[in-house]
Amino acid sequence: VNIFIATIDNDRATLRADESWHCAKVLRKRTGDDIRIIDGKGSFYSAVLTVVSEKKCEARITSGPEIQAKRNYHLHLAIAPTKQVDRMEWMIEKAVEIGIDEITFIHAKNSERTVIKTDRIMKVVESAIKQSLQARIPKVNEITGFKEVICVASEQKLIAWCGDGRKTEIWKFPFAGKNTLVLIGPEGDFTQAEADAAIEKGFVPVSLGETRLRTETAGLYVCQLASIISHMA
Amino acid sequence: VNIFIATIDNDRATLRADESWHCAKVLRKRTGDDIRIIDGKGSFYSAVLTVVSEKKCEARITSGPEIQAKRNYHLHLAIAPTKQVDRMEWMIEKAVEIGIDEITFIHAKNSERTVIKTDRIMKVVESAIKQSLQARIPKVNEITGFKEVICVASEQKLIAWCGDGRKTEIWKFPFAGKNTLVLIGPEGDFTQAEADAAIEKGFVPVSLGETRLRTETAGLYVCQLASIISHMA
Repeated sequence: VNIFIATIDNDRATLRADESWHCAKVLRKRTGDDIRIIDGKGSFYSAVLTVVSEKKCEARITSGPEIQAKRNYHLHLAIAPTKQVDRMEWMIEKAVEIGIDEITFIHAKNSERTVIKTDRIMKVVESAIKQSLQARIPKVNEITGFKEVICVASEQKLIAWCGDGRKTEIWKFPFAGKNTLVLIGPEGDFTQAEADAAIEKGFVPVSLGETRLRTETAGLYVCQLASIISHMA
Repeated sequence: VNIFIATIDNDRATLRADESWHCAKVLRKRTGDDIRIIDGKGSFYSAVLTVVSEKKCEARITSGPEIQAKRNYHLHLAIAPTKQVDRMEWMIEKAVEIGIDEITFIHAKNSERTVIKTDRIMKVVESAIKQSLQARIPKVNEITGFKEVICVASEQKLIAWCGDGRKTEIWKFPFAGKNTLVLIGPEGDFTQAEADAAIEKGFVPVSLGETRLRTETAGLYVCQLASIISHMA
């Protein structure tokens, strides 16, 4: 059974415009077909299509909501996009499969890319949400200047960087029950001035281990770490 | 400084044929240039090029060996290749960055791909080794039948599958100080008969968490888990 994103009003579900097109044109669904629906906020429904057209599909809800269990941690990843967009896209796909709540792209001093199409990223996010049978769509923020990013509030604020200075191994932090924001720099890393500014704002410098990780590998590593550490808590 | 793979004989390093071509033609190195060398077995060297030609480059070792620290775990991942080769290739790239010792491709009942070019995979492995500044090249095995794979010896043998039956969460296993073999199935999963056969041979069925992971995400998850759990030990 195919899964679609829709808005719910009592027992009526209205598929989003792009989802309607996909439902009617690509999958050639018909009135009366059973579908699964997610609202993007954590609920699954079963439904039957009542209106099928390229512009608008509607369905009658037959069961639900079933609520997707909440993770016992909240992870916000802020990352400098890589030069190659496909590297960012796969990282996002995998991060969503593993579990992530919010993604912000950072415009840092050494950024190799300062423009990112968040609508395209959202497509990747939504596709991964459906693929991994989840119902809660992570928030994706537009690219944000480094100075703004370090002012974002969070219970636990970490900055991964490779420069000199005392660093704590990231697996020593608790993630369970916490709201954590982790900053990952560009291939050329954050500058000393950026790291200093972040520390000033309460970020703790962390290391991700011995080997040198690419930006996108580091981002995914943090998602998997948060998942594993929280499971073990 | 560029890194090349070479065989070492006393103070003379001979670059591998493909590495010589890359050194001479692509990077246009000259006699007298400084290079870094890895032997693929865990040693780094500094060297000066003495012979530069497309077919054969040689260098004189000026310092080394420096030995890459060994991880405190040994991980052998056996995985059914995905239909899309690029998904396997990025998984391999990331697995190598994070740390892996041996990779075997499995030909399982539900495999979507039963042929894989291991020479192309080796290129990905070697590139990731250089990128992440490592000196020990993981072993890559040709595609192997499921029945043969489950006869491979290992101290700790785990099979990730989504079927019914009692499963242990993978993060409950120790990885530090151990030689572990983990089997990851195709998108269509291992069959019940395959799972039964593996259990018969001493494999323990494990779950990787609540969400449904793609094959390549599951493979990378296991690499990151082994790294994190071993770091925490």
